[in-house]
Amino acid sequence: MRKSNILGKRKSKKVSLLQKKRGKAPGTITYMGNREKERSTVKIMEYNADMEQEFTPKSVAEIDMHTKPGTITWIDVAGLTDEAFIEKLGKEFGLNPLILEDTLNIGQRPKIDEYDTYIFGIFKMLYLNENNELVLEHLGLVLLDDSVMVFQEEPLHDVFDGVRERIRSKTGRIRYSGADYLFFALLDSVIDNYFVVLENINLNIETLEEEVYQNPTPETAIKIQQLKKEVLKIRRLIYPVKELISRLIDTENPLITKDTKLFLRDALDHSVEINETLQIYREMSMSLLEMYMSNISNKMNEVMKVLTIMASIFIPLTFIVGVYGMNFDHMPELHWKYGYFGVWGVMILLFVGMLIYFRRKNWI
Amino acid sequence: MRKSNILGKRKSKKVSLLQKKRGKAPGTITYMGNREKERSTVKIMEYNADMEQEFTPKSVAEIDMHTKPGTITWIDVAGLTDEAFIEKLGKEFGLNPLILEDTLNIGQRPKIDEYDTYIFGIFKMLYLNENNELVLEHLGLVLLDDSVMVFQEEPLHDVFDGVRERIRSKTGRIRYSGADYLFFALLDSVIDNYFVVLENINLNIETLEEEVYQNPTPETAIKIQQLKKEVLKIRRLIYPVKELISRLIDTENPLITKDTKLFLRDALDHSVEINETLQIYREMSMSLLEMYMSNISNKMNEVMKVLTIMASIFIPLTFIVGVYGMNFDHMPELHWKYGYFGVWGVMILLFVGMLIYFRRKNWI
Amino acid sequence: MRKSNILGKRKSKKVSLLQKKRGKAPGTITYMGNREKERSTVKIMEYNADMEQEFTPKSVAEIDMHTKPGTITWIDVAGLTDEAFIEKLGKEFGLNPLILEDTLNIGQRPKIDEYDTYIFGIFKMLYLNENNELVLEHLGLVLLDDSVMVFQEEPLHDVFDGVRERIRSKTGRIRYSGADYLFFALLDSVIDNYFVVLENINLNIETLEEEVYQNPTPETAIKIQQLKKEVLKIRRLIYPVKELISRLIDTENPLITKDTKLFLRDALDHSVEINETLQIYREMSMSLLEMYMSNISNKMNEVMKVLTIMASIFIPLTFIVGVYGMNFDHMPELHWKYGYFGVWGVMILLFVGMLIYFRRKNWI
Amino acid sequence: MRKSNILGKRKSKKVSLLQKKRGKAPGTITYMGNREKERSTVKIMEYNADMEQEFTPKSVAEIDMHTKPGTITWIDVAGLTDEAFIEKLGKEFGLNPLILEDTLNIGQRPKIDEYDTYIFGIFKMLYLNENNELVLEHLGLVLLDDSVMVFQEEPLHDVFDGVRERIRSKTGRIRYSGADYLFFALLDSVIDNYFVVLENINLNIETLEEEVYQNPTPETAIKIQQLKKEVLKIRRLIYPVKELISRLIDTENPLITKDTKLFLRDALDHSVEINETLQIYREMSMSLLEMYMSNISNKMNEVMKVLTIMASIFIPLTFIVGVYGMNFDHMPELHWKYGYFGVWGVMILLFVGMLIYFRRKNWI
Amino acid sequence: MRKSNILGKRKSKKVSLLQKKRGKAPGTITYMGNREKERSTVKIMEYNADMEQEFTPKSVAEIDMHTKPGTITWIDVAGLTDEAFIEKLGKEFGLNPLILEDTLNIGQRPKIDEYDTYIFGIFKMLYLNENNELVLEHLGLVLLDDSVMVFQEEPLHDVFDGVRERIRSKTGRIRYSGADYLFFALLDSVIDNYFVVLENINLNIETLEEEVYQNPTPETAIKIQQLKKEVLKIRRLIYPVKELISRLIDTENPLITKDTKLFLRDALDHSVEINETLQIYREMSMSLLEMYMSNISNKMNEVMKVLTIMASIFIPLTFIVGVYGMNFDHMPELHWKYGYFGVWGVMILLFVGMLIYFRRKNWI
Repeated sequence: MRKSNILGKRKSKKVSLLQKKRGKAPGTITYMGNREKERSTVKIMEYNADMEQEFTPKSVAEIDMHTKPGTITWIDVAGLTDEAFIEKLGKEFGLNPLILEDTLNIGQRPKIDEYDTYIFGIFKMLYLNENNELVLEHLGLVLLDDSVMVFQEEPLHDVFDGVRERIRSKTGRIRYSGADYLFFALLDSVIDNYFVVLENINLNIETLEEEVYQNPTPETAIKIQQLKKEVLKIRRLIYPVKELISRLIDTENPLITKDTKLFLRDALDHSVEINETLQIYREMSMSLLEMYMSNISNKMNEVMKVLTIMASIFIPLTFIVGVYGMNFDHMPELHWKYGYFGVWGVMILLFVGMLIYFRRKNWI
Repeated sequence: MRKSNILGKRKSKKVSLLQKKRGKAPGTITYMGNREKERSTVKIMEYNADMEQEFTPKSVAEIDMHTKPGTITWIDVAGLTDEAFIEKLGKEFGLNPLILEDTLNIGQRPKIDEYDTYIFGIFKMLYLNENNELVLEHLGLVLLDDSVMVFQEEPLHDVFDGVRERIRSKTGRIRYSGADYLFFALLDSVIDNYFVVLENINLNIETLEEEVYQNPTPETAIKIQQLKKEVLKIRRLIYPVKELISRLIDTENPLITKDTKLFLRDALDHSVEINETLQIYREMSMSLLEMYMSNISNKMNEVMKVLTIMASIFIPLTFIVGVYGMNFDHMPELHWKYGYFGVWGVMILLFVGMLIYFRRKNWI
Repeated sequence: MRKSNILGKRKSKKVSLLQKKRGKAPGTITYMGNREKERSTVKIMEYNADMEQEFTPKSVAEIDMHTKPGTITWIDVAGLTDEAFIEKLGKEFGLNPLILEDTLNIGQRPKIDEYDTYIFGIFKMLYLNENNELVLEHLGLVLLDDSVMVFQEEPLHDVFDGVRERIRSKTGRIRYSGADYLFFALLDSVIDNYFVVLENINLNIETLEEEVYQNPTPETAIKIQQLKKEVLKIRRLIYPVKELISRLIDTENPLITKDTKLFLRDALDHSVEINETLQIYREMSMSLLEMYMSNISNKMNEVMKVLTIMASIFIPLTFIVGVYGMNFDHMPELHWKYGYFGVWGVMILLFVGMLIYFRRKNWI
Repeated sequence: MRKSNILGKRKSKKVSLLQKKRGKAPGTITYMGNREKERSTVKIMEYNADMEQEFTPKSVAEIDMHTKPGTITWIDVAGLTDEAFIEKLGKEFGLNPLILEDTLNIGQRPKIDEYDTYIFGIFKMLYLNENNELVLEHLGLVLLDDSVMVFQEEPLHDVFDGVRERIRSKTGRIRYSGADYLFFALLDSVIDNYFVVLENINLNIETLEEEVYQNPTPETAIKIQQLKKEVLKIRRLIYPVKELISRLIDTENPLITKDTKLFLRDALDHSVEINETLQIYREMSMSLLEMYMSNISNKMNEVMKVLTIMASIFIPLTFIVGVYGMNFDHMPELHWKYGYFGVWGVMILLFVGMLIYFRRKNWI
Repeated sequence: MRKSNILGKRKSKKVSLLQKKRGKAPGTITYMGNREKERSTVKIMEYNADMEQEFTPKSVAEIDMHTKPGTITWIDVAGLTDEAFIEKLGKEFGLNPLILEDTLNIGQRPKIDEYDTYIFGIFKMLYLNENNELVLEHLGLVLLDDSVMVFQEEPLHDVFDGVRERIRSKTGRIRYSGADYLFFALLDSVIDNYFVVLENINLNIETLEEEVYQNPTPETAIKIQQLKKEVLKIRRLIYPVKELISRLIDTENPLITKDTKLFLRDALDHSVEINETLQIYREMSMSLLEMYMSNISNKMNEVMKVLTIMASIFIPLTFIVGVYGMNFDHMPELHWKYGYFGVWGVMILLFVGMLIYFRRKNWI
């Protein structure tokens, strides 16, 4: 689980964009992430219109044993560090090693690969955890004839609880549809969560906007910069999804029925909307820095005006009093009876004149 | 009805760009907006070349009862919060639940979906209300064989009054044409209103331009920023329309006749024009901020010049009078008869010299 | 005739980009511009390889009466406010009302519509009038089997005089070619005028460039902004032409012969060149503002340097003379014989040292 | 020959981008440039694998007389002002007048037109002359069945000398190949020269970069601007070449053999590289101005720091000495024995304190 | 081996982007780089599922002698200056001279050319050497029926050691696959190294970011500029790879089997990822300069505030003490008993008032 909180500490940017084994042969199934090794946990859900059962198998063999014909099986694998188990599972279901490699490589970008008997997809789950931090999770989905396999990093948090609930409570059409509908429903959950993340970005933009308008500090610029990077990175993870769904809709693979394509069209709509929104957020975050700069310039202007007014008023006055501080033997004004008061008069006139001048210029 | 007045208070930006139910099954018909629940009101208009009648049914059954064959029926549903009614209506006319879901989801972007027996479109109505505030309304249009269904949010304001009037007064070809022409006429009304909104943006740009040239304040920058956001958002709502109309023109669906396509080509022209205009407005609003910045810089320059002139003239003079304020025992000038007046002479020369210098530099 | 002089008064921006009737039925033939109503004037030119005659008919019927078979007829209608006359003319020649609507709507963007027996085009004529002001004129062209109809706004100025002259003097191939060549020749005249307009923009850019380099004032920024808007608007009017000509070349409509397409290819070349040039002008005008800003910054730098030099030299000196203006009882220096001259010495050293320092820094 | 030296005098920008005759009939063969009229000079080179001869014919008839069957003839026409001669030559070889018009119109952009029996191309030759000035020359190439015609503006300088040498010395495959290989070889020479021009731009960029880093003056900004314009203009002349060569490779015209296409593919590679390089230069020149601006800001910062340090140190000290310059009757400090030295102590402390403060702020 | 260290000395930019022989006939095999002439060294690796042998032939003839049928031969040529040897080798294997020309021209951009019996590719190897300097190496790959030829510049460093090791140790499928898999494996090694280079750029960006936030100096701007150029240049070398691999996947050439295409699809994924990452780095490096500028502005603001505060406080006070330094005969305040202390009171009040004022303004 990689966390990146936009407005929080700036240090945790160890989330390298690039994760790649080097020198190894392609097709080697190795976990490519930062988590500690632990056993994968598997949850199985099996259902059709008539029944629904859930269980937690201990081994690959046990999975096979339990599943019955005429049902849809949802195999949910949480934890990607258990390479041996996942390799075994892949072999059991006849998956290409390249697929498993991509599944375990959390640096892999979103993709969809069609094989003869299954469709494989990599997506990125984005959600806000209980501390309102953005969490990025790598997700592998495999659609087979009558089952769907899900590989996720995180065993605890589960964005698929909604789908699970719908299966249990027989809400909507999910119990009456095939594995492809389940595949869609899971994908749809992932996309739904993107909206939450976008909403959160929107909030950040508005907060920063307020800050820029009210009380911009150098820290504000750094926050804007972080936001821009955040949007760039999220965009990179989400952007390909539209293209991928669009390919699913156009595929002639019989694994995806015409009915499900209707729903995928809806998901396509959503991903188009997400991309457009991200584009708008990108422009807004760029605008923020412009606003910030214009605000800095305004402040500078204000500072300069204060200085100029103070200096323009008092420097000439100081000159005048300096004149009568000179020690010449012959300075007639010094001996005038009202000389002193006369000087005050002149200075007050000058002072008022200056004020009027700056008032006219709209500086005060 | 979501109002957003560009130049007014900046607080009402609760118009979330993203509205989405999460965790619910796709196809669930739920109102996704901020309005209070109220009953939908339905207005029916039935006409052909020979007759025209209007009535307000109380129930779905009543609609069916009244409509006669050989006529075009325009069913206008105002108010999208009455989910039960709309679901019933949808079933009566055999509409896919996904359509109704999109109709009630006011966050849904513009789209056109073709089904076997009907064409469904989502558009965004934009108009200025009586207070000159921009109002955004979600609009669903369904074209069936001999009827058109309209779903709009707002029961009161009606941008379709013009069309209604043309039907009543038998103006133009509308009474002699099919349901597809009515569909076009409604779409055309919506697009016509976009022009009013654009005109209003244009006015705002010109007002701000004047403000930037004449008397820019930090508030001006905020207004420019608001304008940019406004244009971005409107563009997002209007932009897809061109593509959608173009698809209507290319469709082979028999619901749209060749004659109506000729008119749609005209509407396409208009939407191309709107998109180009929005593009120009976008560039103009970006230029505004540049102008603003250059203006701020100019003002700063002016401030600095005043300061520099005042300081450069009086600081040296103050130094001179300081010299003769010193208390050395042996300062021959102090005892010269015309020492004091000599110093004044020198200072006046310096003063005039400085003025000439700054004049030459074009600073004063 | 809408005039917009880039560098002249900024007030005449009433040239609304958007002109549209609202609430009216599509196909209504109404003049959509700002001119006063007046009668259209018609000039007919009839020619073939052997003969050429010109006349000015008083009514639509008269046109028909005069034209003979075996000739090319050029019907030139000047003045678009005479709706009744134009509608009658359209009916006589069997033109679709939508065409006439576009012809009279001076807000209509350039377009080409092909019908079975004629091709209709809307273009924008741009030329400099005798006062060197940019004039924009709306132009409708209809190519029929053996005639060309021209609708223009302005009865006086005529950019088509060159073509008329070539017909009269039998120059080039025009008298030996069909109506499509005449259509091309008129279009070619319009495009030729675009080059004059571009040349004029180029001149404005160079003038402004000179101004930015030599003596930029806040007015300069406004002029640059106006130029940018001007280029944006002209681009919008000219840009579609390339696409339209390219469509004429690809058409399979027999109205346009293979020979004329060769010439249209040449016109296409020109419109590509115009678009590229406008693109370059756009970038240049954006560069102008950058240059302006960098110039303002340079000036500010210069101002600041003057201030800093003056202040840095005289403030310390003033401090020194202040020291010896103090009235302490025990200030030994005051009583030294050469104290006063010693202080002068120190101050001159300081002064020279400062000068050397600033010289080294390349400030003076 | 139009010269434009980037870093030299800025006055010679009379090189109008747009050259076009107005009011003339298309197809009129007129020279459209700024050169003085002079006779064209023609050089003929005739060769095959066995022989090679060169001669300079005095008339069009003489050309025909000399050429023998079974050879490749290279007809090199230098000087485009001799309209009569070129028209005659064109007729002799059956060239379309439109071709000759484009050849003589030095404002014509690069193009390739295929006719039934020949292929015609316009290109722009760019090279540095002996004074290192950039020279732009208009070039027409015609590929016929067994001959190539070259039309160039400049009789003296010859970028084709390399090709001529290869023919004479029988280097490479040129003597064993057809006219299409000669056509390619000439085009290749032109493209090779583009690399020299690019290298020169690169040099200018590096020189300016050095200037921006070391010693930026307002002149530097103007030079950067000139460079940007230069790159824009060159790009416009070179950019289309890639597309044109790509069309030559895809053509099914038998004039170009499969073998030559292999070589053209190589030329295509080069033109892609040139376009990419120009793109990079464009971005670099834009970066230059940014760097310049950041440098100006840095300098301003430095200036301001000097001012602030001087003022912040000496203004308070001046205040202190001012205090003891007051003439109150009762000022006890004045009569203290060590009052004067005490004040000096305070002032030195203040001075040192200030220095430490600014040191901490990293200003000095 | 051309080294370019981003953050190191800026002088070594002699890496001309453009390397091209001029005036020579196309197809001439000449080394186009900066290295000293030296003999090429050749390493041969021959293997199949059953055996593996390596040897270093002394001549071209020796290569032929050793290779046996039924094996895959990997011919690795290091050093591109030995033109004669490479020409001989090319002839022996029937390679087109154009290929060898491209191989020796280190300025050649990445490309793939398919011939009837072999596929030829140019790529750019990028890696960090032991001193962490970026090294760019030109690489030619030829895929023949049962052998792969590799041409590299640098005899010492070898990014292909990993592949060699896999062959020796029979890791993965390489020993069981054809020459096309070897070709893929080499290409994959090259792409893997791109990731290291990207990681290094990422590090540089983060270092600069830190510098911009903490302690920006004019040097920082130069470093940012260098980084931008570096990214531009690397992008230019890497960008085409995606397109080339995509063409390899689409080819119908039997040299590349369907199995290997599956692996190439993986390599395509990686190159897409690299391009996206470079795009992000480009945007980030542009953001860096913006941040730098905003930081400079902030610093200026801070400087100005210090100046303004100091001047605004002490200039008025200096004026006051100046007043009582005047030498008028009649200045009643001078003779008041508590005059002096009263003045101090006024001045302290003023001082405190000023402090409060600036505090309120949030300046201190």
